[in-house]
Amino acid sequence: MSDFPKRLLEDVSGFPTLGPAEAIAEERLLAVIRKHFEAAGYAPLETPLVERPEVLTAKNEGEIASQIYGLRLLNPEEGASDEKDLALRFDHTVPRARYIATHARKLAFPFRRSAIGKVFRGERAKEGRYREFLQADIDAVGHGALSPLHDAEMVAIIAGIFAELDFGPFTVRINNRKVLAALIRHMGGTEDAMPELMRAIDRLEKAGKEKVALALVAHGMQQERARELLDFLPAKRSAEESLTFLESAGLDAEGSEGLGELTEVIRGLEAMGVPPERYTIDLSIARGLSYYTGSVFETQLDEHPDLGSVASGGRYAHLASAYTKESYPGVGISIGVSRLLARLIKAGIMEAKAETPAQVLVTTAERDHLAEYLNYAKELRTAGIACEIYLEEKPFDKQLAFADKKGFPFALIAMKEHFDRGIVILRNLSSGEQQELSPAALAKEFK
Amino acid sequence: MSDFPKRLLEDVSGFPTLGPAEAIAEERLLAVIRKHFEAAGYAPLETPLVERPEVLTAKNEGEIASQIYGLRLLNPEEGASDEKDLALRFDHTVPRARYIATHARKLAFPFRRSAIGKVFRGERAKEGRYREFLQADIDAVGHGALSPLHDAEMVAIIAGIFAELDFGPFTVRINNRKVLAALIRHMGGTEDAMPELMRAIDRLEKAGKEKVALALVAHGMQQERARELLDFLPAKRSAEESLTFLESAGLDAEGSEGLGELTEVIRGLEAMGVPPERYTIDLSIARGLSYYTGSVFETQLDEHPDLGSVASGGRYAHLASAYTKESYPGVGISIGVSRLLARLIKAGIMEAKAETPAQVLVTTAERDHLAEYLNYAKELRTAGIACEIYLEEKPFDKQLAFADKKGFPFALIAMKEHFDRGIVILRNLSSGEQQELSPAALAKEFK
Repeated sequence: MSDFPKRLLEDVSGFPTLGPAEAIAEERLLAVIRKHFEAAGYAPLETPLVERPEVLTAKNEGEIASQIYGLRLLNPEEGASDEKDLALRFDHTVPRARYIATHARKLAFPFRRSAIGKVFRGERAKEGRYREFLQADIDAVGHGALSPLHDAEMVAIIAGIFAELDFGPFTVRINNRKVLAALIRHMGGTEDAMPELMRAIDRLEKAGKEKVALALVAHGMQQERARELLDFLPAKRSAEESLTFLESAGLDAEGSEGLGELTEVIRGLEAMGVPPERYTIDLSIARGLSYYTGSVFETQLDEHPDLGSVASGGRYAHLASAYTKESYPGVGISIGVSRLLARLIKAGIMEAKAETPAQVLVTTAERDHLAEYLNYAKELRTAGIACEIYLEEKPFDKQLAFADKKGFPFALIAMKEHFDRGIVILRNLSSGEQQELSPAALAKEFK
Repeated sequence: MSDFPKRLLEDVSGFPTLGPAEAIAEERLLAVIRKHFEAAGYAPLETPLVERPEVLTAKNEGEIASQIYGLRLLNPEEGASDEKDLALRFDHTVPRARYIATHARKLAFPFRRSAIGKVFRGERAKEGRYREFLQADIDAVGHGALSPLHDAEMVAIIAGIFAELDFGPFTVRINNRKVLAALIRHMGGTEDAMPELMRAIDRLEKAGKEKVALALVAHGMQQERARELLDFLPAKRSAEESLTFLESAGLDAEGSEGLGELTEVIRGLEAMGVPPERYTIDLSIARGLSYYTGSVFETQLDEHPDLGSVASGGRYAHLASAYTKESYPGVGISIGVSRLLARLIKAGIMEAKAETPAQVLVTTAERDHLAEYLNYAKELRTAGIACEIYLEEKPFDKQLAFADKKGFPFALIAMKEHFDRGIVILRNLSSGEQQELSPAALAKEFK
């Protein structure tokens, strides 16, 4: 058995393992995200990872349809059943739409829900592309109508999360696709070509003006007006300046509707007390996904624009339209946790060093005093201080080497002399500094 | 699009959705489990849900091999790749063994890790059988050796979790398979038949003495001695009585080794301060899985024996033996969260009623005062009080009906008169009781 081929033991491309240090960093991200989702009343909804293929492909989003994983039993027993009817979800949006379509009668609207879990996409493997990844979403869904204040709440929640995560200054960029569409029409873009024109504009930051202008022209715009549009859209303005400008831009009916929504979002953010430097109107944001119909959001870490958007989302007019005639407008955001974590670690914004969630290693130099050591560990834990206790019978220096290797901040030490003196030693493992603590007040003095 | 067939929108059998109330209850379970895992220094290890089939089947556990789901792209693009080499994990044990086999050099042993995540088994669907379920595991793994004190720590962690969950009295039942094997041999069971004899004994509680006796006889034991064994094993004794008895039972070498381990586990639990009524030695516990080689654990809620074991585990001598020649003894426990949650709710031990994680609904009766309402919500959240704010423009009674339907404990209310008087009203939605709060000290007075 032991000559198992080594190459088969490596992670499959696109399906990475997070070792303890990275998993601890991920848990830190998730704890903050979860906290802000909950604080605003977003209830978890845990949809299965497995759905029917028909449900997943009902909306028929070209590219994604070719990335859906179906299931089959590897070694089916005789007479085994219906696995051809199983497939892995590729996002949280489709399962949520299914849930609403089937449970609408018992739900109270607006329905706020969160979803944190794995999704799967059979993309060609390349660097930084995951085929299994963790996504953290929230949505608010109305029945018939949903106030643009919900869009503002999304931005406020993103702002709350990234303020607490403290990765430096960031900006949520807000746009409204109705406004953008009106501006495009104003510059001679046709309704037929609108999805392609939006998709081209969405790539402005990555692809640059030249390439995008070519794409706009290829989809029927005049070169001059295409360039004018691309000069104009990404210009830096405050939210207030943008609103003032748009009011005088002579937008058509749909554009004016979008402007009304956008204004309500900005007024909502002011009322919610979100610091004005944390958001802006960016008319060049489109988001590629065709189902967005109003607000769209992206979030940039100001000092790390190369990371791309760290939290994105938008408004859709009819989220369950594939499954029901009823109208359920929604607005949502999504944080691609796996991708974000990898980028934060790579950019040095998050550390992934300590291989343990514990603050302290309780060393056990004197085997005769095991009961005391176990008691120290118990006291620390009861006080909410995570600690590991070294339970093997090994020399003290081996125990310290273990503590160093795993990256514990502190070691608790008690040798014979310390027991005699009725003290324990707390050693700071990075500075080497030591402190005498009283066993009777261990947790208190540790803090 | 909207005539999507209704039956296709239902959950697939074995792949249930947890609605908000159940998902909130699950999150409560997980928060306690996660806290105790972390407090004792178990680092999260996030292995992918997708593994190579060869890795999953290396140990060739008969029944499970027929339950493994492979993946395939539903609509592969031309030239698409290697999906025949992908399959879904069926437990956390195999991926952990793979991780250790590949990362042993950089790991510090003993290696404590936790894993909380979904696993998949293509069992025939029947009531209460999940094909996708959430499993929460910890393991401690040594290199070459691992002290039985780690086995005791597992029991202590189970005891800590279920004490805090407060589901009533519970008992961790501890046994050692070496001891059980020695007792079986003592009564004439053969080494060849040992796996079957253990498996039969493991079913004692469910199947009853008669059936198990028949199975033992079918596997070569004499009827009288089989009955004697089955009378003797499950007898109620304190841990101390059991140890005393076993010491005088004339166990063979392997049995004595097991007894030494068992004794060390019990002494460890005493030293760890685990209340003695929370654990017992139960000589009839075997655990079906053949890889356990020493300690085995099950946990029973004393008042709900019908729930079965709520946390189980044991010791294995060579956990990565399928992949490496090195010896990595380990001990672990597993909590089948999905199954446990469903049973707890069904038995009325856990409630799954509130459809929201929020304490308060901030109602918005006077649209002109939206900024104030938003400010109340912000203050409550900043103080750690989760609250939802009603953002739609709807009559006040509709807002209260919404609060009732979702099960908020409290509603915050401010009508024109209250703004005039400079107060807000906190209404307890179950008792109807109302209280006047000062907007300036909202969070403080709420608490």
